[in-house]
Parts: sequence; C-alpha cells; structure tokens
Amino acid sequence: MRAEIVSIGTELLLGHTVNSDAAIVARELAALGIDLMHIQTVGDNRERLSQALAMALARSDLVITTGGLGPTDDDLTKSVVAETAGVQLVPDAESMRRLREYFGSRAMGSTQERQALMPEGATVFYNHKGTAPGYALSLAGGKAIILLPGPPVELSHMLVASVVPWLARLSNQALCSTMIRTFGIGEGDAAERISDLMAGANPTVAPYAQGGEMFIRVSARAADEASARALAEPLISEIRRRLGDVVYGIDVASLEEVVLRELLARGMTIATAESCTGGLLAKRITDLPGASDAFGLGLVAYANTAKEKLLHVPAAMLAEFGAVSPEVATAMAGNVRKLAQSDIGLGITGIAGPTGATAQKPLGLVHIALATSDAATVSRHTLKGKYPGRDWVRSRAASIALDMTRRFLAGLPIPAEY
Amino acid sequence: MRAEIVSIGTELLLGHTVNSDAAIVARELAALGIDLMHIQTVGDNRERLSQALAMALARSDLVITTGGLGPTDDDLTKSVVAETAGVQLVPDAESMRRLREYFGSRAMGSTQERQALMPEGATVFYNHKGTAPGYALSLAGGKAIILLPGPPVELSHMLVASVVPWLARLSNQALCSTMIRTFGIGEGDAAERISDLMAGANPTVAPYAQGGEMFIRVSARAADEASARALAEPLISEIRRRLGDVVYGIDVASLEEVVLRELLARGMTIATAESCTGGLLAKRITDLPGASDAFGLGLVAYANTAKEKLLHVPAAMLAEFGAVSPEVATAMAGNVRKLAQSDIGLGITGIAGPTGATAQKPLGLVHIALATSDAATVSRHTLKGKYPGRDWVRSRAASIALDMTRRFLAGLPIPAEY
Repeated sequence: MRAEIVSIGTELLLGHTVNSDAAIVARELAALGIDLMHIQTVGDNRERLSQALAMALARSDLVITTGGLGPTDDDLTKSVVAETAGVQLVPDAESMRRLREYFGSRAMGSTQERQALMPEGATVFYNHKGTAPGYALSLAGGKAIILLPGPPVELSHMLVASVVPWLARLSNQALCSTMIRTFGIGEGDAAERISDLMAGANPTVAPYAQGGEMFIRVSARAADEASARALAEPLISEIRRRLGDVVYGIDVASLEEVVLRELLARGMTIATAESCTGGLLAKRITDLPGASDAFGLGLVAYANTAKEKLLHVPAAMLAEFGAVSPEVATAMAGNVRKLAQSDIGLGITGIAGPTGATAQKPLGLVHIALATSDAATVSRHTLKGKYPGRDWVRSRAASIALDMTRRFLAGLPIPAEY
Repeated sequence: MRAEIVSIGTELLLGHTVNSDAAIVARELAALGIDLMHIQTVGDNRERLSQALAMALARSDLVITTGGLGPTDDDLTKSVVAETAGVQLVPDAESMRRLREYFGSRAMGSTQERQALMPEGATVFYNHKGTAPGYALSLAGGKAIILLPGPPVELSHMLVASVVPWLARLSNQALCSTMIRTFGIGEGDAAERISDLMAGANPTVAPYAQGGEMFIRVSARAADEASARALAEPLISEIRRRLGDVVYGIDVASLEEVVLRELLARGMTIATAESCTGGLLAKRITDLPGASDAFGLGLVAYANTAKEKLLHVPAAMLAEFGAVSPEVATAMAGNVRKLAQSDIGLGITGIAGPTGATAQKPLGLVHIALATSDAATVSRHTLKGKYPGRDWVRSRAASIALDMTRRFLAGLPIPAEY
C-alpha cells in the first residue's frame, strides 16, 4: 500500500509553522508497515489543493490530509475533498451534539457550526482534544482518503485512538524500524565505519544527524513483525559492535531517558548546578515522568552572586579563575550535590554568547563537572566549529553533561573533551 | 516568481525527522516576496526524486532542494539534479581545498570526497558550518534550481549568507507579513471577533493556533516593502483593537522576549522558583541573549526538602496546605525574590502528571505566584481539557508565569485563572 500525505496551510508555505503533523503521521504509517512515498504541502488555496489531491489519489492508494478543518474561513479541506471524491457535505448529528457540549454555555458562531458537516458516507473520527472531527472516506478501486485536523495534539490523539485501528486492517506487511542512537561521533565518521552495510535493500541502513547527535536507522520488512525483527537483528548487532560505546541506546527517546532509567535502576539521585545552560539541563531531566524519584534540586546560578551565596563557590576562586573555569564547574557540581544530599552533582559553566568571550575564554568555552561523594571529573569543551551560536552551545553542553552521567553510570571512560 | 521546495530524505518519510528546513526556506522566500506554492517531500530514491524535480521545474520558476548532499551513500540529490538539468558533475577545486582543510589531520574517506563534485556551470555556495556545499544552477527559460544541505544550521547560514543575495535580484515584488501574537484567547474566539476581516485577498488575514498561543498573520503585497506595509497597517491596528490586551506583541519571537525586553527597559530583575516546570521557566528566560542583566538566580525545588531547605518554605505550611497550594506558590515566589534580591519573584507549583493527582488536587492543577517587595499575586489553573499531558501542563504553566509578568509590567490586570 502506497501512502501520501497532503499538508494544507498557508502558514506552512510562509514558514510560520513547521510541519510536525507530517512527521507524526509518517511515524504511525511506518509502524503499520505502510509505505509513505510522498508528502505534498499546499496553501489554503482551492485550486492548488484540488490539484494536489487529484495527483495524490492518482499515484497513491491512501491519502492523508492534515490541516484545514478548523472553524476559520480559510479552512477548506473538507469541501475540496468532497468535490474531488464526488460526494456532498451533509450534517452529522453526533458532531453537532459534541460541538454544542464542548461550547457549553459559551456562544458558538456559524463558522464553528461548519465543523459538524461531514463528507457523505465518511467514517467520522471524533476529536477528543478539540472541536474539528476527522474523517475516513473509502473510494472506488480500494483507495481511501483520511482527513485529520492540523493542531498536533489533536492529530496525534486521533491517529492513535481512531486512525490506526481503521488502517490496521488495510495493511498486510510489517515494517520493523529500529533507531540506533549515538552521542559523540560525527555523521561522516559513522558513515565511513558502516558504509558497506548501507547497500542493502532489505534491511535498509541509513545514518543521519540531528541536534548534534547521530542516528542510524535499520528498517526491515517481512510478512509479520517478528520476521522483520529477525531480519534486522544481526545488522543492528554488527552496527553496535562497530560504533562501540558512543551508542547510548536503541529505540530510546533521548539521552535523558537513558540517564534517568539508569539512575532509577540503581536507586541513585542527581542534582544540577547550571550557569550558561540556564535550567535546560534540569528541564531535560524533568521532562520525563518519574524524574522526582531521582532529581530533587536544581540551581540556576546565572549571576556570580548566586554562585557565591547559594552554591558557596568561594569568592576568591571566582576572582582567581573566573566563573568559567574547571575549578568553578567542579565546585558547583560538588556543592549542589551536598546541598541536595544526592549521589551525583553536575556543574556547568560556560560562555554561550553572543557576548562575554575574551581572548583567553572564547565563545563556546564550557566546563562541565560531575561530582560524587569521593571524586569529581571535569571536562572542557570549545563548542564551535560546525554549529556555533547560543542555542547550540547550551543544548550541546546539557547533552554532554547527560552523556558524562551515562558513561559514569555504565563505568565507561569519560572523554576529557567531546 | 513561483517557488517550490523539494525536500529529500527517507528520514522525513519515516517521521524520524521533522521538516524544519522547509519552514526555514519558506520564511526567507516570504521575506523576499517570492511566492512559495508547493513543498514536496520524497525519499532517497532516484526515480521519485527525478519525477519530483521534473514536476517542480515544469510548474515553478524556482526550485529549492533541501537535503541529500551529505557524504553518505543515500545522498543522491546532486547527481539527479545534474541529470535532470542535463549537465555533468565536475570537480570543484575550491570545494576540495575546503574539505581537506576541514578534515585537517583526520582521515577523509572517498564518500567524503564526493562532496567536492559540482553540477557543471553552477554557482557554488561554500558551507561555513559543515562540509557539503550548496549550488545554484540557472536553467533555460529564466528558471533556476538551488541545492541546499539538510542540516538546519548549515542550511540557515547558507541561506542568509549566500542564497538570499543570489535571489534578491530575481524578485520584483515585496511581501510584508506581520504576525500578531496573543496569549489567553482561543482560536475560535479570536476568529469570531475578526471573521469579517478575513475575506480580503490583499492583505490576507489568517489566524492559527500554535503551542497554546493564537497568532494572526496579516500579509500584504505591493511593488515595494513600504507600500505593502502601508496597506497592512490599518488592518493590524483594527485587529489589535478588537483583540485587546491578550495581544502580547507584533513580530516578536515569544512571550519571554517581550518580558525580558520590558524588564531590561525598566532596569528590573527577576528570579524563579519552580517545582513542576523543572527549570523550563528559567530556561525560556535565559534562551535570550542579554538575560543575565535581568536574571541571576533560578531554583528548581522539585522535592519538598529542597523547598524547605533552599527556599525556606515552612515545613508546617507544606504539611498544612500541601506542596501544590497557593500558599506554597506565594512563599516560593517571595522567598526566591529575597534570596536573589530581585525586583520580581515567580513561583510555580503544580501536578504535571502522569502521577501525583488526588481527588482534591487533579492532574494539571497549578498555582503560579508573582511577588514583589510589597505585594504578591497568585493564580490557580486546571490545565486540562483541550491539551492535557505532562508537556502541555509544564509549557502552559511557564507561559502563564511569563504572561503574568508581562501584565504586571504593563500595569494590566492579571486574571485569577487563564
């Protein structure tokens, strides 16, 4: 089954919105073993939407539209789909009832009421996170078109709750797609090490970089998921072997997920003291449910007075070495660990920019320390070169702190520089 | 001039990567007054890439490809473009010199060297953030094709440094696109208030929701930017008037940007004490360069012991009212303000979930306090309904704290509930 996404919205063509909907739908299709071949994006324009839908229906078996179902006047997906499919828009009583219930005592405008119209013959997917329903319409020749609302939270929920069950019976092949995640190796380096493994058609091996990390995707197809998995396993093992300890996880969501899981498994706790990252490290750790069992305290000591007063970094140390120094990073890590009475303390101090750099301390210089009750490790980084800039320095520094923790917990060596 | 983006990469079709490149290119095209009509996404597949390029060149004047220029074996954009355009791939000496310089003493593989091949006759855009260069190729009939690397940081830099100057001379119409940003009003409500303004073709008015905020885009076209702006201004004023004080900014990047700007303008400082948001509020404030002049200290008091010991929230208060209470939020805000000796203190405590809820204190219950030297305001929210879930509760709570600060600084009333 060949699938295609048609994303609708002028905001996408003006770059005001990133098309996260397409990625969300794509992941679900991959999990179902449905081949997504094309994504098209068009604006809120009747003629171009009509052309895009006609082309999609000509070359694909399943067309999924995202966006253009809301109450506003430029949302025209439903009428163009009905026209393309040759059906009328008719009122759906249940949609109207839900819409009235959602609005309660608040006034509902006539533009809102249009959300209760449905393409005749469609299956309606009610929206548990918003007002605009989604639809599935079976067409001649075994083809189908599915309409989903644009807001990602609404779309995600509807996909899992309604669309996946509707689609599951249409698919007859399973795809097993595994993501090997690494930190601390470049795309080119990784590709060189596994280039001979990248020629196959099934499984396929594809490396790519994202957010300073390097992922390798291994995808295998077979009649069922177990067979697909059996096909992929030997390749996954070989890639792990070749890449070594930069591999931090397989099918995990993030470095922080791995770190939290390992902390919880050991009953250990961690505390953070951040300067240049400004709370990003604490935020990433607490993104995850269950973080409170391993994380109780984070300090964002952005000013030197905060480092002195709350973190007890000696004024003399700040004066002698400067706030961006291995000494201060180590003191921050050690002292926040004591304040929190945790097993591990992390300290980050650096120059995220765009100002604050000197000849001796360039933009992107970051010192990161990990302290336990009996030792401290500090690493030094100059985060520039390929991706400079404030966001990059902050995000990279938080990632390095997490990777140092991962390596510490696994008993792996911690690089002096990443 | 009609433009089209062709985004290339199987990772996009598998949903492993969100297509942020297309949004970055789209924004630059809009600023240049170039109409982007279509975005296509295809995988690393020679046949479908070739078809997509042929269709794009048939219907558009300018085609911009993103991705598929890296050193790995599945990167085939350059050869398919050369084939479509009917030119050869030839070595570019300067690209090879830069590639060797970039690698320095590190070994460079043969797959890396392919990055120095260019379509014959192309203008080469050297990559200052990575190794793969970009290209512009003028074709018969006044058409052009531009090839850009996939990593967003490389693409962004190359766009601004090389592509925009190359394109500026091709455009002869200006577009003025203005974004009115609001916080605290729903998409439907906003659309009802301005629905009569949304019918025009020039300027166009389009509302949409993103991340719990509601934006209205006003776009006008004219021969030059000043004329386009003059066309848009009356509409922008009218929309502001109708929406009132939920409008937090025009063409600003975020609530935090407005808050920081207003703090700096008044020479005021702020400190944060966070529980359920776990550092996200401090992170958002320090995302911005210059934050250190207004922000010196943030505390992430995730555990009750951290609230007691570092924030001096009385144990008796925690016992009597619980950690998630207006009393504790107010104490957190007041005490972090005193610790930091700042003008404003913010305190957030709530239940982000998925666990921790009780019958009296449901998931999504958040208390947010703003304290100054002589007063404190606390607001109570039950962040559920349209977008529940941990990320939503955290992000919404941080946004409300920022909006409370914006309103306090502007002398506007602060809602008891958003």
